[in-house]
Amino acid sequence: SVNPDLASERQTASFSVEKLTAWLDGGAEHTRLRRAVVEVIERDPVFSRENQYFQSQNERYEVAVKKAVHLQKKMHEMGWTESGPEFKYIYRAVSGDVAFLLHRIFIRSISVLGSDKQIAKWIPLASQYQLIGSYAQTELGHGTYLQGLETTAVFDITTQEFILNTPKISAMKWWPGDMGRSATHTVVFAQLYVHGKCYGVHPFIVQIRSLQDHSLCPGIIAGDIGPKMNFEHIDNGYLMLQNVRVPRENMLNKFCEVQPDGTYVRRGSPKINYFTMTTVRISLISHEVVIPLMKACTIAIRYSAVRRQSKLKPGEQEAKILDYQTQQEKLLPQLAAAYAFRFIDDYLQELFDRGYGEIQRKNFAMLPELHALSSGFKAFVSQFGTSGVKICLQACGGHGYSLLSGLPSLYTKILASCIYEGENTILFLQTARFLIKCFMAASTGQHVPPSVTYLAAVKPKKCPAKNKLDFLRSDIYTEAYQHTAVRLISSTAAKLQDLIQSGVKKYNAWNQCTVQLVQAAKAHCHYITVKNFVETVEKLETTTGIQKIMKHLCDLFALHGIFSNTGVFLHDGYISGEQMDMVTASYLDLLAIIRKDAVPLVDAFDFTDSSLNSALGSYDGQVYQRLYEWAQKSPTNKQMSPAYEKYLKPLLHNTLSKL
Amino acid sequence: SVNPDLASERQTASFSVEKLTAWLDGGAEHTRLRRAVVEVIERDPVFSRENQYFQSQNERYEVAVKKAVHLQKKMHEMGWTESGPEFKYIYRAVSGDVAFLLHRIFIRSISVLGSDKQIAKWIPLASQYQLIGSYAQTELGHGTYLQGLETTAVFDITTQEFILNTPKISAMKWWPGDMGRSATHTVVFAQLYVHGKCYGVHPFIVQIRSLQDHSLCPGIIAGDIGPKMNFEHIDNGYLMLQNVRVPRENMLNKFCEVQPDGTYVRRGSPKINYFTMTTVRISLISHEVVIPLMKACTIAIRYSAVRRQSKLKPGEQEAKILDYQTQQEKLLPQLAAAYAFRFIDDYLQELFDRGYGEIQRKNFAMLPELHALSSGFKAFVSQFGTSGVKICLQACGGHGYSLLSGLPSLYTKILASCIYEGENTILFLQTARFLIKCFMAASTGQHVPPSVTYLAAVKPKKCPAKNKLDFLRSDIYTEAYQHTAVRLISSTAAKLQDLIQSGVKKYNAWNQCTVQLVQAAKAHCHYITVKNFVETVEKLETTTGIQKIMKHLCDLFALHGIFSNTGVFLHDGYISGEQMDMVTASYLDLLAIIRKDAVPLVDAFDFTDSSLNSALGSYDGQVYQRLYEWAQKSPTNKQMSPAYEKYLKPLLHNTLSKL
Repeated sequence: SVNPDLASERQTASFSVEKLTAWLDGGAEHTRLRRAVVEVIERDPVFSRENQYFQSQNERYEVAVKKAVHLQKKMHEMGWTESGPEFKYIYRAVSGDVAFLLHRIFIRSISVLGSDKQIAKWIPLASQYQLIGSYAQTELGHGTYLQGLETTAVFDITTQEFILNTPKISAMKWWPGDMGRSATHTVVFAQLYVHGKCYGVHPFIVQIRSLQDHSLCPGIIAGDIGPKMNFEHIDNGYLMLQNVRVPRENMLNKFCEVQPDGTYVRRGSPKINYFTMTTVRISLISHEVVIPLMKACTIAIRYSAVRRQSKLKPGEQEAKILDYQTQQEKLLPQLAAAYAFRFIDDYLQELFDRGYGEIQRKNFAMLPELHALSSGFKAFVSQFGTSGVKICLQACGGHGYSLLSGLPSLYTKILASCIYEGENTILFLQTARFLIKCFMAASTGQHVPPSVTYLAAVKPKKCPAKNKLDFLRSDIYTEAYQHTAVRLISSTAAKLQDLIQSGVKKYNAWNQCTVQLVQAAKAHCHYITVKNFVETVEKLETTTGIQKIMKHLCDLFALHGIFSNTGVFLHDGYISGEQMDMVTASYLDLLAIIRKDAVPLVDAFDFTDSSLNSALGSYDGQVYQRLYEWAQKSPTNKQMSPAYEKYLKPLLHNTLSKL
Repeated sequence: SVNPDLASERQTASFSVEKLTAWLDGGAEHTRLRRAVVEVIERDPVFSRENQYFQSQNERYEVAVKKAVHLQKKMHEMGWTESGPEFKYIYRAVSGDVAFLLHRIFIRSISVLGSDKQIAKWIPLASQYQLIGSYAQTELGHGTYLQGLETTAVFDITTQEFILNTPKISAMKWWPGDMGRSATHTVVFAQLYVHGKCYGVHPFIVQIRSLQDHSLCPGIIAGDIGPKMNFEHIDNGYLMLQNVRVPRENMLNKFCEVQPDGTYVRRGSPKINYFTMTTVRISLISHEVVIPLMKACTIAIRYSAVRRQSKLKPGEQEAKILDYQTQQEKLLPQLAAAYAFRFIDDYLQELFDRGYGEIQRKNFAMLPELHALSSGFKAFVSQFGTSGVKICLQACGGHGYSLLSGLPSLYTKILASCIYEGENTILFLQTARFLIKCFMAASTGQHVPPSVTYLAAVKPKKCPAKNKLDFLRSDIYTEAYQHTAVRLISSTAAKLQDLIQSGVKKYNAWNQCTVQLVQAAKAHCHYITVKNFVETVEKLETTTGIQKIMKHLCDLFALHGIFSNTGVFLHDGYISGEQMDMVTASYLDLLAIIRKDAVPLVDAFDFTDSSLNSALGSYDGQVYQRLYEWAQKSPTNKQMSPAYEKYLKPLLHNTLSKL
């Protein structure tokens, strides 16, 4: 039965949860399909995550492989294909808890970087799992700075082979998923040498394990890198190469090639080598950031509606913690952010689809903007989302700290998204470089990409808001964000120029501005996110209650950003201290308004209890009962610990001196 | 051999590392003693933490008990006693990785809350480990709101016993350490009923397991609460009581007592029941927050001096990441904070020692200030420290995410300190209540405790700084902190009064101000921390280089706080936008200055390699070699996973359809 404290929250929803779910899914038809996929997966006991929190790294890996293999069978059985409409729901349905994710990156990198001939050879093998692929880019000594990779691939003209080597310990490949124990093949990124000349980093397909007995191939040393904060189910691996030879055809050569005589030919932009990363960055936002943030909000908000602690009004029943302003101020901005990022994901996806189409037609003009946006938003969304999940975890107090809440694993997983596929600070700086360049171009009247045309617009000097209600006007706050983004970008550009003009070397000047450049890049992403949220709300029908509540969330997201970064807006007096008090007042008012719909707003994310896998977040709100039942299943309760006979008994029986 | 990139950092130290270490220890004599204790512990293989990152929860618990028992033997052997000078170094030497910590809280609570007779009976038993104690306060349904605890203790006048019960599932004791599997006794906090009247929460000594065979006593249901983000070595437990009877003498009765005829007698302040928590909050700051933060800084800064990534200057060798401004801006403020908190710990300890003396003399006048400061600083330091360790972890990129870096376990452990012994938001609000009360008193000329007399002082309206160097004057920035603390406290007090005067009920008005009250409490703690840092530096001899570098760190800590909270200082124009640019300039300048001494400054913390237990943080800086060697020892590399024969082989051998 549903906890009455949760049931009552659902009776007063200001909108139809089912309609909001359908809208988030892109239509009721999609909701039906998604639910059908989820049901098939969850009905199958192989995909159960029931004991996940009790398993060792070895167990988690074994289960993840089992699930990945079973998934192939299941897809075959259900008639689901990788290009079918069901496919995009599968990853969500299995909660990412499967092996072979890097196998898919292996496939994608060949599709993007390989020639038609290479695609024809490798993709069918990989798709039918006649090999298991991985993607070996990062090394012990190099992550973000790809040009510094130390693995070498020397072309041997006599045998028409590349000879791959790990010349020193820091050159060892380190971190690639699926590589520690599963993969038979991998795409190795190595410095290409032909006739003693280095041509930079290129990708090579290398077999690392026998297809017969899985033993390591000659010249290969590989294994698992050991325990991590999360991803116990993934065999992140290491790889050393000792004179490993691969045929000339194994260099992925859609965009560049070594011909039999050693001639090096380049086709298209050299930046295309990095394009796989752009695609991965955009696709990870949805699965690795937005969904975990939505789940964390669901758990923490449902729990906050059933947890009662202390009395608000003397003499009354203890209050739901969701009724405390401080709790609302922790959770509701994260809820608003989950929606904001759900929408920015659509924006990026659309931009990416357009860009990818152009690249297919060998037009690389959109690459810089795509690269800048995918970098900046990967960093912005993962940083915000990570902080959001952490807030949700801490907002659940001690019970949030128990693995059984589901929040620790969501947190340690999303935390990794700040690091992998580009460390966030480095990514912000790449966006900043693009912004500075565009700002310079815009200020001299040159054409700039659509997302940054605002840098050229003339801005008002002061925020025109006169009372707290004015700050619920989307034009008012969008302008404020735009103003601060322009100010931060232009002032940092000015500092940079001043330094250079005063004789500081360009690279030193850049380094001395990087703290401020990161701020500028964040401000840009924050602005675009707010603007996109506003535009999304404006496109909604006004007849249902959905537009109204989405407008509230949009306002909350925008005002939370101002309230949490007041200095940025106050600095040049664009917003005055008095106006900032209005922002605060409107912001705090919104919390009380959205609080009423908080549970329906997380219900609309439509996560099943199995997918949340949380003793605190289940639909029925029976949190204490579930914590108690789940704890019984812990291996720590399976038997008396040997510690008793070995240590406690002798101690208690006062034989201390004889130990 | 030491990595040359680390060795070179040590050759240019502006001060004597050994002298700084001695000063931090309180004199060279203490350093010698600490090192002697550490050496004894680390030489003993039982205390090794070598395989810690590979162990399961069950294994970790067993090892922790083994270590705790062995430690007793060791202390006996070495002639160390709980009151001896060595004792305070033991916990640091074993890195907290031992059982029976709650046993010590059990002892402390009896010492503080028990009568002389109770102390005489229980303390020797506990000290000699003829029993193992725990401290059962928190319940499934109640953490922060102690008055809401639901466990009952009914006085039975006929048998002169208390009957303890867990009337519902939410009343179950949940979280107490050492209770899940080890403890034989515990102090249970329960609502006392005499003749049907409830007298509130009181502490009772209850035996829960047999001293003979460790089986649960009649009426006791207890076990382990399962996996958590950390503390795998601790058996946090649950406890249900079903008509468990304890004699009248088992209620701790230094401050209140039930007499044989059922008369309830109170002696001293009812707040004294919470005094144990105050002592625990203060003592945890050093061990659970400052030391982990110092360790994280040591690891991240040493790693940043050997990690080279990307080129600062084209054509040169790749740069140490510590040379990037963004990396400095991540790590160096955390280093400054570690020092700041090391000093605030002294301040609190001294205050506490004075307060404890008074209480022993039955003078409770200092309790409110002690409670407010211990609450606020526990929250402020743990929140700042947790964020600091997280920054250190992320600053090490992917390798920081590996458990082998040591950073994840430091992080997940310090994170808990934001929750246990009082959830931080609740604690800040308790401090805020004290501040508002004192502000009201001070503004009507009444006497207030020393730490808040500043609330009555008249303040200048504008910061007098004229150039960036002015912001390196401690009077300038201390004044700025004081000004903002007063402003936030007074403006929130005004809002509170306005609301009440406009007819809002007092409890509602309070709730509507809590977001701002938390800000005010933080500002107060931040101010006191800066002020105390300044005073500590002023007391230092000026002859060595230590004062100079400490002054830099003090400036950095203060300016970082302004730079990270610009809005608070800009809001009323106390600091202008132009002045804020000076703050930024001075702040960024300081980074480059302190960077030169960064490695010596963490070396001075004097952690051994074993105590850091980090592949990235060792003194010799051989990070890649160590990561590789440690990974070999992972259980994931011990054998081929059964996943191969079961799942991978059939898949690769193309028997998918037959699976």
